[in-house]
This record gives sequence, structure tokens and C-alpha cells, in this order.
Amino acid sequence: MKKKLLITNDDSIFAEGIKILEHGLKEFGSVYTVAPDREKSAVSFGITTNSPLRISKVDEFHYAITGTPVDCVYLATKVLLKEKPDIVVSGINHGANIGEDTIYSGTVAGAFQASLLGIQAIAISVIEGKTHKYDFESAIKVSKSIVKFLLYNPLPEGTILSINVPFEPKGVKITKLGHKRYDAEVIEKMDPRGNKYYWIGPGKITVFGEDSTDVKAVESGYISITPLSLNFFNDKLFGYLKEKENEIFKEMV
Amino acid sequence: MKKKLLITNDDSIFAEGIKILEHGLKEFGSVYTVAPDREKSAVSFGITTNSPLRISKVDEFHYAITGTPVDCVYLATKVLLKEKPDIVVSGINHGANIGEDTIYSGTVAGAFQASLLGIQAIAISVIEGKTHKYDFESAIKVSKSIVKFLLYNPLPEGTILSINVPFEPKGVKITKLGHKRYDAEVIEKMDPRGNKYYWIGPGKITVFGEDSTDVKAVESGYISITPLSLNFFNDKLFGYLKEKENEIFKEMV
Repeated sequence: MKKKLLITNDDSIFAEGIKILEHGLKEFGSVYTVAPDREKSAVSFGITTNSPLRISKVDEFHYAITGTPVDCVYLATKVLLKEKPDIVVSGINHGANIGEDTIYSGTVAGAFQASLLGIQAIAISVIEGKTHKYDFESAIKVSKSIVKFLLYNPLPEGTILSINVPFEPKGVKITKLGHKRYDAEVIEKMDPRGNKYYWIGPGKITVFGEDSTDVKAVESGYISITPLSLNFFNDKLFGYLKEKENEIFKEMV
Repeated sequence: MKKKLLITNDDSIFAEGIKILEHGLKEFGSVYTVAPDREKSAVSFGITTNSPLRISKVDEFHYAITGTPVDCVYLATKVLLKEKPDIVVSGINHGANIGEDTIYSGTVAGAFQASLLGIQAIAISVIEGKTHKYDFESAIKVSKSIVKFLLYNPLPEGTILSINVPFEPKGVKITKLGHKRYDAEVIEKMDPRGNKYYWIGPGKITVFGEDSTDVKAVESGYISITPLSLNFFNDKLFGYLKEKENEIFKEMV
């Protein structure tokens, strides 16, 4: 049966990864692309609530939005497609989305938003090889397998798969989330009128993780598929606080 | 000993909650406020990477930033204070941050960013009472108790406490994260030139959770203190995918 697929990303509708993905997924049915009209990297789960959004129709299957990936998923499902697609594929992102760093990703947030609306969703990212090239071919291959699997084996609402594809991968691994954190540097510059401005740069990156993690998988040349959901409750800390309850509460209400 | 405290929020430097918080926390030491120069609700973990940031100095202790709460934490720690403060208090947010909905919050993201940089951090939000009033007095009371506790009992890196204060609370509860999700509506409008534009509105809100959750605590009139961290890996789904590995992998690399 022909399916309805929705593509979004955070690199903008002009990104190379979007065109490749559209081509790769068309065998499944109708592929719609609703993506930001400009780069929206690191916008995370941002929703545009303070200003209106505009839709630029490119053709029946392509729409550029003046907002974030989360905005795109809302406008696609509520206005443009007028129904839920069978699956949302967010990407192909240019650059890894692994470890805690995943939280900043607009690409991953786009997939999560779809999943929160009850739509199957994956995020897919390619990692630069030593020759500064991306392996889109492997990314398409894994995306197609996962899409086929999910269309017949749906995941629970609120969960997504985040896929990271290194250059010329040796194989595939189901992984846990490792650690990748930025301690960003802030660069001070001077504008032509002599006023200071600041850029947040990448800074120091800390990457570590056990064998079973996304971090280790891509480091050793494997495609990483990580199951994610939005439960950021910390059970261990809950136990600790319950023990200290009396001490914490003693000066309150 | 005099401590160094940093306040940020996502409601902007002009928000009522910031002024009240500054006043309430000054007994601990020097209180610096570095906050967005305009409302940045629902910007989540967004980082401004595509454009420069400007800092407007109001006075020695107050700075307005042209960015997100995460940007504010970076500029405060790397440029303005030139060292890590002892604690970051993000808020007082006007409106609840409970359930999955917490992920969209700029206020909570500001606290998380501090924690990822190794700084003790809390997010604090007040919930509108029936008379459309906020109980800032109770919010200050609980903030002060928690700040005092954390300064002598630090939490692990990457963890925060998210505090929600209903109007005239009956007491305090350490809670788990419940469920609060938006299924936003998209409202179509027409501009003065006859072109369509769209607003993302709040839409349908689903709220539920067991007795031990933030959702239930604030519903029944209690202050909720929820320990959070950024581990959004889904272990159950990992087990399921490992079982299905052969089926998923068979058409890949």
C-alpha cells in the first residue's frame, strides 16, 4: 500500500541531505517535505510562539517554513497534509547527533515532535569522514530498512530512533546513549562601528561512552541506532531527595 | 561565606519573576541577572549559532542578552562573571513546567545548561491561581530553602531540580515527572495585504499522572520538586530492538 511520508530537518529545505532522502524514500509512496526556509541548527525543541509563521509553497510536495523543525511538523500535519503521515523522517542531518548533545538538535526534536503526535518517527544524521565527505548512500540504505520495519512494527508514542551514519560503515549496532558535551567558547569580536559582539563557538568537546553506546559505535565505524524517549526524570536523585526530605522541607511552607 | 548567584529566565529581563527572585536571594551574596532582552518562551535548549549576540549592560549586576536562556548562561559564565557562579536559579517562570512539556521550556533549559557546565542549578515556575494571581511569596520561600540545601549538598553534574509552585500551596512534595502534552492547534489568519499567516496556539492539552507526579502534586495544591537529568535513552525499547536485530539488519550494509 502506498504510504504518506513527511521529511523535515534543521539544515533547511535547500540542504543536500533532504534531496537525497526524498529520492531514497519515494518507493514507499508520497513523500512530502516541509522544512525551515533557512538553517535552524541547534534550535532544539523551540516552538515559534511569539511571531507568525509563513509557508512558501515550492510545489505540491515541497514547503518552506519560516520556523523551526517542531513548527514544520505542526504546520505539515495540521495545515498542509491535513492528516498524520505514516512516518516522519527528520534529516539527513549534516553532522552527528550523539550523547547529551542530541538535546540541542533541531533534527532530533522534529522527529520527537512527530512521535508526541502519535506518528512513527526517526532522525538520521551523517558524520563527516576523514576526507570531509558524507556517506549518504549508507544513510539511505539504513533509513529505508528502518522505515520498512517501523511501518509494520510501530514504536510506542513518544519514542524515536536516532540513527548516526559514519563514513563507509562496517556494520550496524543498536546502541545506548553515550556522552558528548560541549563546553562552548564565547568569541568576542568588534563590529565596524567599534561595538563588541559575541559568537558562541564549539569550544571543548568531551566525548566518552561504554562499548554499547552511540559514541563508541560511530567511533569504531558502525552505524548507530539509538532508541530515545522524553523521560528525563532522575529516579536515583528522587530516592536521595526523599531520604533528605525533612532537612529540605524544614524551612518551607 | 558570600556566594555568587546567577539568575536567568525565558520571560526576559523585564519579567516580574526576576525582580522578585533577585530580592529574595540577595541574602546569600552577590546576585547577577543575565537574561534575554525579550520574551523567549518555548525556545527550549536553543543556542544562537547562526548570528552574533549582543550584551546590554544595565548596571554591574544586570545584563540583557539578544539570545536564549542557554546563550545567557554561556555569556554569563564565560564573559560577564568570568567564573562559574555557585548556583544558577532560572525563573521565576510565569506558568507551569510539568510533564513532557518541560522539554520546550527555556527556563528549564537555562538551568540544565548550567548543570552541564558543572554548576548547581534549579528552575522555578509559578502556576496561576483561580484569581489569575501567582504566589511569588511561596516561590521565594521554597527557592531559598533549596538554594541553601544545594550550596551544602551539591547535586551530580547534569541534574537539576524543577520546582513548580501553585497558588497558596498546602505543602511540598518531591515528585516524579508526569504527563502534560500539547496537541497544538494552528490558527490561520490573513495579513493586511491578503496573504495568509499562521500562529501555533496552545490547542488540546492532555494532563495525567500518578499520585507521586508533579502533575498530581500541583493539581492537589502542593509545591512540586522534580529531579531531572538528560538521559533520554529508552532502555525498554533497546531490549526490544536487540531482540528484533536480525529482522531489522537483514537488508542493511
